[in-house]
Amino acid sequence: MLGLALLGSGRMADVYGPKINAHPGFHLVTIYNPRLASAEKAVARHGGTADDDLARVLGDDRIDAVIIATPTDTHLEYVQACAKAGKPVYCEKPLDMTLERVDKCLDALAAHPVPFMLGFNRRFDPDIRRLQTAVRDGEIGALTFLMSWSREPAPPPIAYVRRSGGYFIDATIHDIDLLCWIAGERPAEVFASGSCLFDPAIAAEGDVDATMTVMKMPSGCLAHVNNSRACAYGFDQRLEAFGRDGMLQTRNHRDDNLVRWDDTRTNASMPLKHFFLERYDASFYHALDEFHRALTEERAPSCTAADGRTALAIALACERSRREHRAVEPEYV
Amino acid sequence: MLGLALLGSGRMADVYGPKINAHPGFHLVTIYNPRLASAEKAVARHGGTADDDLARVLGDDRIDAVIIATPTDTHLEYVQACAKAGKPVYCEKPLDMTLERVDKCLDALAAHPVPFMLGFNRRFDPDIRRLQTAVRDGEIGALTFLMSWSREPAPPPIAYVRRSGGYFIDATIHDIDLLCWIAGERPAEVFASGSCLFDPAIAAEGDVDATMTVMKMPSGCLAHVNNSRACAYGFDQRLEAFGRDGMLQTRNHRDDNLVRWDDTRTNASMPLKHFFLERYDASFYHALDEFHRALTEERAPSCTAADGRTALAIALACERSRREHRAVEPEYV
Amino acid sequence: MLGLALLGSGRMADVYGPKINAHPGFHLVTIYNPRLASAEKAVARHGGTADDDLARVLGDDRIDAVIIATPTDTHLEYVQACAKAGKPVYCEKPLDMTLERVDKCLDALAAHPVPFMLGFNRRFDPDIRRLQTAVRDGEIGALTFLMSWSREPAPPPIAYVRRSGGYFIDATIHDIDLLCWIAGERPAEVFASGSCLFDPAIAAEGDVDATMTVMKMPSGCLAHVNNSRACAYGFDQRLEAFGRDGMLQTRNHRDDNLVRWDDTRTNASMPLKHFFLERYDASFYHALDEFHRALTEERAPSCTAADGRTALAIALACERSRREHRAVEPEYV
Amino acid sequence: MLGLALLGSGRMADVYGPKINAHPGFHLVTIYNPRLASAEKAVARHGGTADDDLARVLGDDRIDAVIIATPTDTHLEYVQACAKAGKPVYCEKPLDMTLERVDKCLDALAAHPVPFMLGFNRRFDPDIRRLQTAVRDGEIGALTFLMSWSREPAPPPIAYVRRSGGYFIDATIHDIDLLCWIAGERPAEVFASGSCLFDPAIAAEGDVDATMTVMKMPSGCLAHVNNSRACAYGFDQRLEAFGRDGMLQTRNHRDDNLVRWDDTRTNASMPLKHFFLERYDASFYHALDEFHRALTEERAPSCTAADGRTALAIALACERSRREHRAVEPEYV
Repeated sequence: MLGLALLGSGRMADVYGPKINAHPGFHLVTIYNPRLASAEKAVARHGGTADDDLARVLGDDRIDAVIIATPTDTHLEYVQACAKAGKPVYCEKPLDMTLERVDKCLDALAAHPVPFMLGFNRRFDPDIRRLQTAVRDGEIGALTFLMSWSREPAPPPIAYVRRSGGYFIDATIHDIDLLCWIAGERPAEVFASGSCLFDPAIAAEGDVDATMTVMKMPSGCLAHVNNSRACAYGFDQRLEAFGRDGMLQTRNHRDDNLVRWDDTRTNASMPLKHFFLERYDASFYHALDEFHRALTEERAPSCTAADGRTALAIALACERSRREHRAVEPEYV
Repeated sequence: MLGLALLGSGRMADVYGPKINAHPGFHLVTIYNPRLASAEKAVARHGGTADDDLARVLGDDRIDAVIIATPTDTHLEYVQACAKAGKPVYCEKPLDMTLERVDKCLDALAAHPVPFMLGFNRRFDPDIRRLQTAVRDGEIGALTFLMSWSREPAPPPIAYVRRSGGYFIDATIHDIDLLCWIAGERPAEVFASGSCLFDPAIAAEGDVDATMTVMKMPSGCLAHVNNSRACAYGFDQRLEAFGRDGMLQTRNHRDDNLVRWDDTRTNASMPLKHFFLERYDASFYHALDEFHRALTEERAPSCTAADGRTALAIALACERSRREHRAVEPEYV
Repeated sequence: MLGLALLGSGRMADVYGPKINAHPGFHLVTIYNPRLASAEKAVARHGGTADDDLARVLGDDRIDAVIIATPTDTHLEYVQACAKAGKPVYCEKPLDMTLERVDKCLDALAAHPVPFMLGFNRRFDPDIRRLQTAVRDGEIGALTFLMSWSREPAPPPIAYVRRSGGYFIDATIHDIDLLCWIAGERPAEVFASGSCLFDPAIAAEGDVDATMTVMKMPSGCLAHVNNSRACAYGFDQRLEAFGRDGMLQTRNHRDDNLVRWDDTRTNASMPLKHFFLERYDASFYHALDEFHRALTEERAPSCTAADGRTALAIALACERSRREHRAVEPEYV
Repeated sequence: MLGLALLGSGRMADVYGPKINAHPGFHLVTIYNPRLASAEKAVARHGGTADDDLARVLGDDRIDAVIIATPTDTHLEYVQACAKAGKPVYCEKPLDMTLERVDKCLDALAAHPVPFMLGFNRRFDPDIRRLQTAVRDGEIGALTFLMSWSREPAPPPIAYVRRSGGYFIDATIHDIDLLCWIAGERPAEVFASGSCLFDPAIAAEGDVDATMTVMKMPSGCLAHVNNSRACAYGFDQRLEAFGRDGMLQTRNHRDDNLVRWDDTRTNASMPLKHFFLERYDASFYHALDEFHRALTEERAPSCTAADGRTALAIALACERSRREHRAVEPEYV
């Protein structure tokens, strides 16, 4: 039974709280927030003890590892503190929004090498994982095309957009990570194009809400991503892998699996699961479980900080490509 | 090029007229109806010459074969006349509604053995034929279950119901013929149950508009048919064959093959093709083509009068089963 | 937190053990088996204390309710004992294999009215429950046809068949319960037909391994069930409800949700979940949860002993119908 | 009945011959080829009279219109000759492979304005047409994304590749035309990326066999095309249109519509129709029919020479984009 401190008490902490409690190998000891009242409210929901003193939390012997579920711009500070304190870290993605600050995280982890896992939870979705495994096992032969659809049900509040780092860094980064992970390589160059078609307030921020991205891998494999901030029928999440010997696809998920026939539509299903909390509910648990197994098996977790840097470098290259209308090589280390 | 006389100028004649004209090996010479004005109207639609004198039609050297598309209660008379005149016959199903009269047809064909084909057109639907071939080729191993769905879009006029011989003889007979043909055997006993759930006028005639039938084959294979006189989403036509090694299914057909996603339904298709003229349009042509090939290859057509007698005997047994609440053995010869 | 005694330590006890442990409102206190060694082995798997003295178990104040997961022929004895002891009971289906003995259960529960739930777990499968709710809510209008497929992956050991009471009582009873529950009525008469097509040893016992059943409801609604003891592609479990306004279907479940395309097959999925433990894994938990909520909300559980009697009466009528080749009216009270 | 001259007697002429013969409003008068022996062989297949004298053909009063189905590099010469002779022209796509020569075609048609139709047959595929109509009718609201898949079953002979003008001009041009036609606009800029992953001989020619293309429309709508010269499961042809209110998709076509279940795959279909002659068989007929109706209704055919120029300009921009790794604006007039 590993004791955990959960840093943060907002939306993402509310995602992790129930998963920690459901996991037989974790015990939630502390919820930390510099604003104690907020931590106390989260404790009322998920248990543990509220604390607003980070040094005390990191010095607590009962804490075997830390889950960072705070705002993105605080990740660097907390990763550094945990690393110095020798506490293993699971950090919600993204690590940060600039390569400079991500590199400081990498430096901290190099100086104080604690086990570290970045929360690219979608890799732990059972369907996506099976697709990745099947591709790696050669079920469809050498990869030719990878395609990813991520269409969100509705635009977020404009305040969220403003702090998001732009659509590629906020959202496409998920698809980027998945496609690189499935392909087993990272793109030599990317091209991205974007429009603002759903919410003019997003255009007013200089951002876009509908994008198409092309990544060209060193093997020649071509990858496509399309993202939109709105989708009439729910959270459209599909992957397609096309290789020399065949094709694999993941299906969308619905709350209701009935097939309906009436005088207007036949063979129909209900709209899709609403958004990521519904669609990827299980993957957060499986991601925590990977963290647990890595700690207990004394091996490195499979989602690394370097993976986070790679995905961010690609997302930044997408943003630059969109602005410069040309293919861009990501700034890898 | 074989010259044809088309007997009848009503709804079924209007089905066969265009198919005859589209077939490169047939030439429509004459449309016969004892009411000349009706034949003349059909000639205006399909070509040929109108005639109201059957002896003259059957004595015409240009007539190589006869298509009987008249009301069911006239089939016997016309089959007898054609057989005596030595003209090959394609007769729309059913041969007749009583075994006595069907046996007279069989007697006439035995006495004057002309090529004869009964128009069980659904056997010539490409999907159904592929299923039958796959079953016969052993693709799913020994048959266990056969299932047939035939749900019509809307109840027919009550006048039609009155003359139809009852729902089993009017409609189930199609499913019966298909399932016997696919199984390659005919049932040792049948059980049928029926309700009147859509049109009370049908109940007033002592008939039903929703039925379930079970046929037990000598091999032990069990066959299910469900028929309804109404169906909200069009003409539901499905077959399922389940054997030791697997299952085969035919899909429904639609005029529009798009897949639609919106805020109420996903992965949806339009309602089904409206009714048998739309769904089985091609099968009438393929049935005529079988007749043509049988004549030119000098072999017996594959749908025989005996097949018609078998299907009728089974349908009559279904009707009796429904009334007597017990399994009934069909009266085969 | 309700304390439970689990009677039985065989296959079904191993189904319930983990569900009890996963449920936040239950606590497994005792596992009972008259053979103590067997109970001890189950305790090693699921926790609690082993006991071979039923009186002691039922007299234990820590036991709030009892789960009966013993062989069918012992259910009566245990239900009577629990009722006398005033302990609420969840009993695995079927209650018993004869109406006489089931009526003794009903008598015991009438004399000592403890909360009682019969484990028709499939009613608690989320897809099936949604279909039932949609039908009851009038989504497809008045019901015309109900259809249920239950095709098992492979025949059970012949020793199991011998004790099973026959295929209708062992297996069809599940479909019977579901269809009556969905329809909201019980059949006025049933007809069943069966063959032995998979395992000749089953025929040698006078039993069948492939059946088709028709149930006619008082409303006129017709219900079809097909059951087979073997199925090449896994555990085929489907429901179809057809009403005046449309149709609802449940889909099969697979362990792997990928869609596969290669040079032999397109748009393909893997074989189905293997058998009931895999397919209905969640429904056992949801059934226990219904039991828990009924106890804590002080209301009667929704699956009653009378429901079990009804399903048995229908299954017995099916067996008789198969032997007598006629429609049979079930012996309801 | 319009008399036709068919120019050419190769593969594409063999596509058009049977469609002309099947069309009730066309009559095949002449097949022209400068090599008379080739024309004579085609006449043996399709009827008409062979001729090797173009002036005689174009001066023949029985010829109401001309179908050009010759090698692409001869289209210009024949279009010019037909236009001068005042004969309406249906010309197989592409008009030519350079904008210079296409502009000469446009000049000839401007100088001698005969009815002219370019054979973008896929616009006349019933499924694609329904999608285009539904999009134009606003069924899914303002367009956000358009996607097109064209994956060919196997690489063509290298001699074909050499003369093809490159993959974008040879193949992507079909998708380009469809997407512009569906969107009702043409891209402001395109980006294309390509690899050679199937046939190294294609790379040796400086060409690619796997491409991804992004087109950005003035409205902001983003369009994706993926093309491959090989596909294990047949000719993969899909379209997806995603708008503010929903999504529309076209399905692939198969020769065999059965659904198959066995111990390795469930819910499976056979591989796709082999290639364009099989998949788009009907669309060639419907394209000819559009040409016929335009001539008899005295209106311009719906696929214009200008449409051909637009598609070529975009395909050339794709090729340039691939080589220059940047977004390119097509050279429209």
